[in-house]
Amino acid sequence: MALIVKKFGGSSVGSVEKIMAVAKRIIDEKKAEDKVVMVVSAMGDTTDDLIALAKGINKDPYQYSREMDMLLTTGEQVSISLLTMAFKTLGHKAVSLTGPLAGMKTNSVHTKGKLVDIKPKRVHEELDKGNIVVVAGFQGCDELGDPVTLGRGGSDTSAVALAGALKADSCEIFTDVDGVYSADPRIVKDARKMKEITYYEMLEMARLGAGVMQPRSVEMGKYFNIPIHVRSTFTTKTGTMIREEYTMEEKDFVIRGVAHDEKVAKIAVLGVPNNPGIAYSIFSALAEANVDVDMIVQSIRNIEKNVTDMVFTVASSDLSQTKKIVDRVADQLQAIAVLVEEDVAKVSIVGAGMLGNPGIAARMFGALSKAAVNIEVISTSEISISCLIKGAQLKEAVNSIHAEFFPQK
Amino acid sequence: MALIVKKFGGSSVGSVEKIMAVAKRIIDEKKAEDKVVMVVSAMGDTTDDLIALAKGINKDPYQYSREMDMLLTTGEQVSISLLTMAFKTLGHKAVSLTGPLAGMKTNSVHTKGKLVDIKPKRVHEELDKGNIVVVAGFQGCDELGDPVTLGRGGSDTSAVALAGALKADSCEIFTDVDGVYSADPRIVKDARKMKEITYYEMLEMARLGAGVMQPRSVEMGKYFNIPIHVRSTFTTKTGTMIREEYTMEEKDFVIRGVAHDEKVAKIAVLGVPNNPGIAYSIFSALAEANVDVDMIVQSIRNIEKNVTDMVFTVASSDLSQTKKIVDRVADQLQAIAVLVEEDVAKVSIVGAGMLGNPGIAARMFGALSKAAVNIEVISTSEISISCLIKGAQLKEAVNSIHAEFFPQK
Repeated sequence: MALIVKKFGGSSVGSVEKIMAVAKRIIDEKKAEDKVVMVVSAMGDTTDDLIALAKGINKDPYQYSREMDMLLTTGEQVSISLLTMAFKTLGHKAVSLTGPLAGMKTNSVHTKGKLVDIKPKRVHEELDKGNIVVVAGFQGCDELGDPVTLGRGGSDTSAVALAGALKADSCEIFTDVDGVYSADPRIVKDARKMKEITYYEMLEMARLGAGVMQPRSVEMGKYFNIPIHVRSTFTTKTGTMIREEYTMEEKDFVIRGVAHDEKVAKIAVLGVPNNPGIAYSIFSALAEANVDVDMIVQSIRNIEKNVTDMVFTVASSDLSQTKKIVDRVADQLQAIAVLVEEDVAKVSIVGAGMLGNPGIAARMFGALSKAAVNIEVISTSEISISCLIKGAQLKEAVNSIHAEFFPQK
Repeated sequence: MALIVKKFGGSSVGSVEKIMAVAKRIIDEKKAEDKVVMVVSAMGDTTDDLIALAKGINKDPYQYSREMDMLLTTGEQVSISLLTMAFKTLGHKAVSLTGPLAGMKTNSVHTKGKLVDIKPKRVHEELDKGNIVVVAGFQGCDELGDPVTLGRGGSDTSAVALAGALKADSCEIFTDVDGVYSADPRIVKDARKMKEITYYEMLEMARLGAGVMQPRSVEMGKYFNIPIHVRSTFTTKTGTMIREEYTMEEKDFVIRGVAHDEKVAKIAVLGVPNNPGIAYSIFSALAEANVDVDMIVQSIRNIEKNVTDMVFTVASSDLSQTKKIVDRVADQLQAIAVLVEEDVAKVSIVGAGMLGNPGIAARMFGALSKAAVNIEVISTSEISISCLIKGAQLKEAVNSIHAEFFPQK
């Protein structure tokens, strides 16, 4: 007997026909003794339709974040009820549970909630009754019982965290690609599908922009040590297994992949006094507003005047909020200017293998140089190196780096 | 300071524009010190759209009643979030609460739930913070926390019951008519708007088909002694006040109104043995299935053979279920036949005044006779008389009776 959590995204349940197809596939694949929990997103365009309604009331509805959560959580509630009816129509016992009913407890940061606890008692009870349990992804409730959404990609996080809390045997993430690739196949023609990747590397890939998995969901997998199988909605082929360690030797490549992120903006605060606490005053204000700051570089502008430049990047979606906050703080700090650049992108290489391999960074910079790409900011972690470049050069940059580390056979 | 519960139906919040209009009106009418609770239904066609989706999965989705409730409760959740955003956009504090969050506890009879308890602690808390509290009508949750809908017209019941539990000063039901009329104005041209009507009479009117209020909501009003003001969404005119007793002398009319109901079906079980327990065996089976039986007549078919005919009426929506159950029981009872007639309608007169006025029934039958309408079944209560007639003659019947009791001045 296996307990398996299977997550299907919005495009997989985008119509009544697709919902019936998913239900049929799950029943076909299911062994009689298996226990199956489905985690699903809202149907296709539902979320966009709901946001459009809200924008009819107010151009900036996200300022009412609690009400947006009240609105948006209906999307999954529709899809779980329909998928459950589909299972029942096909003759299998099933029951739907909203995030709150499945015991998904969150903090109260509306539209960007985080799971703080999972009490899946009801899920176990319904599984024990022989039900396929269909859980709404992307959502939970806070201490007041108010609905809270987990923010973008939150359904993956729901699925993996629920799998962890249920002590499931595995978590399958069904998506429109058939696994994790060495680079985005839409950009790099000969990108390769990985059979396995470690949580650590996948986390870094996701953090650096590989869209296939949301970083927080990989963290959850690592925390609970739940193997995550990323696979295709449209085929039954094996995809990529994300787990703690490799089960086979895959020493061919020193890096695991090339990630990129176009949804990045660069902010430069020029000419701030180089005193202790300056960085704190900028970044604590951003942290309070829940803005994630990514690359940070501080450089000396003028030693005699003891002023410095502070350059950092944020997600494009946080830019307008960031600009407001930074303008205010820069004013207090008597900075010379705040510059914003939106046409930037980040390209990164990821791989635990680079730890014992000096010269990897040099090879990456060489590949960028060969493609005539100028590097604006560099940042590194233990298992990754990232370069901020002009957005217009992203495709050349990714291809050149990929060719360097994954030469065609 | 007054605490007022205001209920708006689906057509009143049928679009983003209408939602903004409702919010504006409420703020305009609200005195600064008033506490306002809004109870709203799903937007216009939302419920029908959701049912259509479910029918795409299964032609008879109501067999999965728990899942239908999971699906349909999203409708009000959308409208409460949008209306709350509208209040906030207009500068007033507001917060939305689903039925469960507002403390509406139901039994577990999905799609036909009944409120069993209301714990409006959260509503009080939010009112105390200065919020207009926007509550989802039509819904609550059972002991498991599963969403349950109250069935047709349930939003009125939600509003009145919540007003009662909150000890509100009044409950205003906004609707597309501007009050309670002496007959349906769509059928009787010179129907008169009532200034006042008692719970008891309104209950009887509603039970007998007057669509303006759902019977259960009037019961709730009577139980909690909450004055219910039925008024128009489109004007600010005073409508009809439903309360315990008249505040003014309105002795002009011996009856309060003529009600009718087209959604009725007649079932006749012919030739059942006239033994004790026969009625019980038929009607207990229907009660178990939550079918409300209305008029019941038993007549002797054949004294020598000791067999009898049992004739009764049910709501048209319950007919197919009723037929199945009655066929089964009739078989066990060895009845001769079960006949169903769908083209019937019920016309009724209602009024506490008829208690001390003999001859009212005769005047009603006379009016029907004048219109050449044949009476199939008669039933009476303390304050009403109902006649089952051919559906095709309904309009003439209602007009003839109305003219008899409400002569034009």
